[in-house]
Amino acid sequence: MADRSTYLIGLIGSGIGTSLSPELHHREADRHHIRLVYRILDIDGHGAPADALADLLHAARDSGFDGLNITHPCKQLVIPHLDELSNDAAALGAVNTVVFADGRTFGHNTDVTGFGSSFVRALPDAPLGHVVQLGAGGAGAAVAHAMLRMGTRHLCIVDTDARRAADLAKSLSAHTGTSRVTSADAAELPRLMAGADGLVHATPTGMVGHPGMPVPATLLREELWVADIVYRPMETELLRAARAAGARTVGGGGMVALQAADAFALFTGLEPHRELMLDDVALLTSAGR
Amino acid sequence: MADRSTYLIGLIGSGIGTSLSPELHHREADRHHIRLVYRILDIDGHGAPADALADLLHAARDSGFDGLNITHPCKQLVIPHLDELSNDAAALGAVNTVVFADGRTFGHNTDVTGFGSSFVRALPDAPLGHVVQLGAGGAGAAVAHAMLRMGTRHLCIVDTDARRAADLAKSLSAHTGTSRVTSADAAELPRLMAGADGLVHATPTGMVGHPGMPVPATLLREELWVADIVYRPMETELLRAARAAGARTVGGGGMVALQAADAFALFTGLEPHRELMLDDVALLTSAGR
Repeated sequence: MADRSTYLIGLIGSGIGTSLSPELHHREADRHHIRLVYRILDIDGHGAPADALADLLHAARDSGFDGLNITHPCKQLVIPHLDELSNDAAALGAVNTVVFADGRTFGHNTDVTGFGSSFVRALPDAPLGHVVQLGAGGAGAAVAHAMLRMGTRHLCIVDTDARRAADLAKSLSAHTGTSRVTSADAAELPRLMAGADGLVHATPTGMVGHPGMPVPATLLREELWVADIVYRPMETELLRAARAAGARTVGGGGMVALQAADAFALFTGLEPHRELMLDDVALLTSAGR
Repeated sequence: MADRSTYLIGLIGSGIGTSLSPELHHREADRHHIRLVYRILDIDGHGAPADALADLLHAARDSGFDGLNITHPCKQLVIPHLDELSNDAAALGAVNTVVFADGRTFGHNTDVTGFGSSFVRALPDAPLGHVVQLGAGGAGAAVAHAMLRMGTRHLCIVDTDARRAADLAKSLSAHTGTSRVTSADAAELPRLMAGADGLVHATPTGMVGHPGMPVPATLLREELWVADIVYRPMETELLRAARAAGARTVGGGGMVALQAADAFALFTGLEPHRELMLDDVALLTSAGR
């Protein structure tokens, strides 16, 4: 009559009621025959984000949660509450996964590792000489960090907010100690894209509710690879246009599945079924979620 | 792809690491195909019981627990933290089950209902004219309350601490508005037992680590029924001696199983498999737990 292990996990953020994470973790837990409950802990209605985060984080820790995922707008706010940070989380200044263990609180960033492994899995031999990235928000920062970790020689960040793009480039340069990152104005996209090996898209354009293309289809071509982090829908206008132009593509579902897989591994110490978690994301997003 | 319901339950108390409750609730949850995690939240090492209880209770509520069981030494201490009490809990002044729902906190006592249904199930036609009860602690209070609810005409409470027995009798009399409860000194047991229909045993004597008999075997006889709340072991010296004397008996396992069943029903709104929970207690205690 061995004790079956139990795991208690939460997700702290704002507007997270439709997150795929509970279902992804529950399905993976079932495959391991472990008892795991994954709960949404929404900060909305609990006051200012920083206070609500602190309250929920401490409540979860004190009531025996094993870990938390952290999402918008808390990924930076959570850092002062943590005892230790992984290298990725420290370099990026953002945490999406918190593990409680032995009375200490550890911060990780599986957005970085999840995007990285999704990319490598889809395009193991992609050229990484010149990469253009659209979007310098929180997801953009994680993705840019992952691109640099994978060896991108020159990453140029473009955002409609030119200041934000410049700030991210500066911050990444400081952390990597290189001049591999620059920023540019959106008006320069035609020139940048003409010389690029790949395009990373990290803005909301193309999501359900934000239809459209982040770049003109005329800038897409056969020699380019295109990685989109939008996953609702899985098949974005950008990806469709890129494939029509003959380009190789990476969809956003892989990052969602593999950040969850990496978090699951950190929470449980178990090796996740990554292929099956990728299948789950495809199934759950195609079901109109 | 319907959302499977999840339930998050805890047990707050002291020295509760070997509680059967997690396993009982997990097994019952599996029979309902629901995802339920039941966690031990031990107050030991968290400061004074009242403070530790308050901290853990609020942490559990804030992090989305659906409910808690409450045990020694917190069953009375928890009451100021609750918004509403069931009739049993209010009458007894003790709570073993807390339900969080719609932003409010409800206190119940399934020790009372669990003992009552265990008793009725085992001895549906037991005479309840004169009942002697040994033990006036927390469990004794719940059991005495249940005996009165079942219609005991005269309940006499005996404790090695005569003051505690008198206080419990007084408190129960006040709440029931009757003179059906008295207390007596242990020296009077021979006389009391001679006139009794049944004996309820609610002290630790006979538990693992507390071997022995709470009354001399010579006071047991065929016409008596004997209910023991000790369940580790299930077969106590008292029950063995009672059966040897020809008396009908009720073991402590029923109360354990059925207080858990009643709590499960309150936590989940589902109808528990009471017979199977009784089997689980028998199995888990016989396995040397």
